[in-house]
Amino acid sequence: MTATEPVDLTVADLHPALGDPALTSMNFLNEVSERYPAAVSLAAGRPYEEFFDLAAVHRHLDTFHRHLTDDLGHSSEQARRLLLQYGRTKGIVHHLIARNLAVDEGITVDPEAVVVTVGCQEAMFLVLRALRAGPEDVLLAVAPTYVGLTGAARLVDLPVWPVAGGTSGVDVADLSVQVRRARAAGLRPRACYVMPDFANPSGVSVSAEDRRRLLTLAAEEDLLLLEDNPYGLFHSADGPRPPTLKALDTGRRVVYLGSFAKTVLPGARVGYVIADQRVAGPDGRVGPLADQLAMIKSMVTVNTSPIAQAVIGGRLLENGCSLVAANTRERSAYTRNLRHLVTGLRRRFPGRAGGPAAVRWTVPAGGFFVVVTVPFPVDDALLDRSARDYGVLWTPMAHFYDDTAPVCALRLSVSAVTPPQIDLGLDRLTALITDEVARRAG
Amino acid sequence: MTATEPVDLTVADLHPALGDPALTSMNFLNEVSERYPAAVSLAAGRPYEEFFDLAAVHRHLDTFHRHLTDDLGHSSEQARRLLLQYGRTKGIVHHLIARNLAVDEGITVDPEAVVVTVGCQEAMFLVLRALRAGPEDVLLAVAPTYVGLTGAARLVDLPVWPVAGGTSGVDVADLSVQVRRARAAGLRPRACYVMPDFANPSGVSVSAEDRRRLLTLAAEEDLLLLEDNPYGLFHSADGPRPPTLKALDTGRRVVYLGSFAKTVLPGARVGYVIADQRVAGPDGRVGPLADQLAMIKSMVTVNTSPIAQAVIGGRLLENGCSLVAANTRERSAYTRNLRHLVTGLRRRFPGRAGGPAAVRWTVPAGGFFVVVTVPFPVDDALLDRSARDYGVLWTPMAHFYDDTAPVCALRLSVSAVTPPQIDLGLDRLTALITDEVARRAG
Repeated sequence: MTATEPVDLTVADLHPALGDPALTSMNFLNEVSERYPAAVSLAAGRPYEEFFDLAAVHRHLDTFHRHLTDDLGHSSEQARRLLLQYGRTKGIVHHLIARNLAVDEGITVDPEAVVVTVGCQEAMFLVLRALRAGPEDVLLAVAPTYVGLTGAARLVDLPVWPVAGGTSGVDVADLSVQVRRARAAGLRPRACYVMPDFANPSGVSVSAEDRRRLLTLAAEEDLLLLEDNPYGLFHSADGPRPPTLKALDTGRRVVYLGSFAKTVLPGARVGYVIADQRVAGPDGRVGPLADQLAMIKSMVTVNTSPIAQAVIGGRLLENGCSLVAANTRERSAYTRNLRHLVTGLRRRFPGRAGGPAAVRWTVPAGGFFVVVTVPFPVDDALLDRSARDYGVLWTPMAHFYDDTAPVCALRLSVSAVTPPQIDLGLDRLTALITDEVARRAG
Repeated sequence: MTATEPVDLTVADLHPALGDPALTSMNFLNEVSERYPAAVSLAAGRPYEEFFDLAAVHRHLDTFHRHLTDDLGHSSEQARRLLLQYGRTKGIVHHLIARNLAVDEGITVDPEAVVVTVGCQEAMFLVLRALRAGPEDVLLAVAPTYVGLTGAARLVDLPVWPVAGGTSGVDVADLSVQVRRARAAGLRPRACYVMPDFANPSGVSVSAEDRRRLLTLAAEEDLLLLEDNPYGLFHSADGPRPPTLKALDTGRRVVYLGSFAKTVLPGARVGYVIADQRVAGPDGRVGPLADQLAMIKSMVTVNTSPIAQAVIGGRLLENGCSLVAANTRERSAYTRNLRHLVTGLRRRFPGRAGGPAAVRWTVPAGGFFVVVTVPFPVDDALLDRSARDYGVLWTPMAHFYDDTAPVCALRLSVSAVTPPQIDLGLDRLTALITDEVARRAG
């Protein structure tokens, strides 16, 4: 009987993004870590979870509810409706996000330019969907780049055109060259994606001078900059942080992507985008790009759960809207771990004096990630072997490049481990590298 | 200075979905209702909110947390991680959703075929993104259709090909004709979208016989059926509900879209999709379509907030996984309102015996919506006048058709009002219709 035959589809019948490494690589990494649960994970970029607290979630909800009634003067019926009913597509904690950006980043933003999103990933997706108007559009992005950016670009059929990262996070001269090269190829570069602070995966930060040069180039070339800033608060050194691109942006060149996953809780799945660019509609009405993004959002997720937003809102309110203050313990933990990892690498690979030569690593000024360069290509097969035979997980840097060229580097993350786990992980990684060098030499 | 010039974009620079009526119409409707807050709204399809309760949200969270530790045996550390950390893309309440479908709908489903989504809208979006492989793909949908479906299709550049709804919800003979017509035009119909129970906007339900005919046709024509079922529980009559398409589906023809917005809380923004179709990957591995949808989801929202999922999970657990039982009060309220509206229309428009002729309305067996047909075209200008001069809001049926032909009908919703508000709204609507008929006659 026909009706009982299986409906078999093949991936080739589905959108081309499916089957693309940008989408499958994340799956592969998750599968490896599930298959080897006992392995020490220097792969996971998840935030430190020792301070997570369900009681705090309850408290944040109540704090935000009180804010609605006591500060904003809503009746209890209105407050209940705001928290539990369908609601404003652009969100209900936009005013607190604007305050947070003023307090922590010196960014002045109209709350109407904020769209609260389901994590920063949705913010990224909405912006790319809006900017991809036709097949001539391309997105510039520093290579290596965050795999979530490449994946979202694939879903909207937007090619990612690589720009050299260099040692300072973005090679501004190369960006200029690539913009012209793309245009000469008949393409329209819409924006350049950058993570100026402790980038995922490179760990590198863009210098204050290069930030200014980026803004100047964006104005000259009529480009938008998509600034993604999930790690900015986690600097190791004392003293002032460099300003964000958005804080320096006097010409509405920067679309700012924000995340609360690392600074509050991943489980709330709340992020946001600041899109103050003025967009003229067909009727001549001008409004912020945020309004266009909200129209897209209304057809993707309708609105971000107001319950989840209230958790973030409550946490902000309980800390005077400063996440710098709220993350003192987390920042210490990451700083301690980063130092422990770098010291541990130095001890295990003392350079020419002993151990395998040509093992090098970055020493980031903050964030979650260190990149280790080794004298052999690092691929998925090696990761699988590392997990199975050595009991340590990390991320092949090849995953962050949008091509298939071999890459002799791997990413280590310090965010979800303790110093003893770092020691154990590094011991195992050292054994792997030593064996691999010997195997290739022999 | 160049850097201080405004970056002015026009909507024409952005994705073509922006500026499309499918996306802007929702905005227009929201704007009208914001401009006239004092108007009685027979437009809003929001669920009844009198029973919403923030204390219940706290309780549901704790119930689900206890389920993780007491029923599933997680340590308190694991439970905290599941609720607050990044998590499984397909969700953490999939087993409870499977149980709910077994209890309430007689649907047997492998929990691995469930993807928990950010509302049903994301479920719809993921499915359409997956199915749109190339420019030859089209989606069939009964006209009039839910505007969120059309909007999501626009975002993935998937044309919507209309099928006649007829009086029974879907004209199966016309579906067969349209499939062939689309194929003759060189197109590939991927699926047909249907809302078999109390459809938005028509209010109509597909007969049990037509449900079976739909499944047979889907098998014959190698089509998927996208069954969207947000209102199924809200039947007015006693006695058994007709089976869902998914309950009748022995050949994996049906992708089932579920929502908790109307049966639990819109503010959780939790929905789901059941996608048990077997998909072969390039490596020959076969898995459920749900896994492909999850890969897309990982690049759109990463995962659905586990805090929001826990609210839904808790409510399910507290009710033996039955939402039929949990919605006794809500169902009574909707049934009462629907009867009150239909009786009120009958009294105000007693047909040939008096009042304007040619005013007719549907009498649905449940759900939120009644369609009123009037002897003149109903457009946005009339809605604006209705709100301003008469103080009553409703939805022009023209919004639910994917063309610009005039439509002489409007949608009334009974879900978010009380009987006195229905009376007031109907008095005002009657005045509008009477005046409009007189104006056109004179």
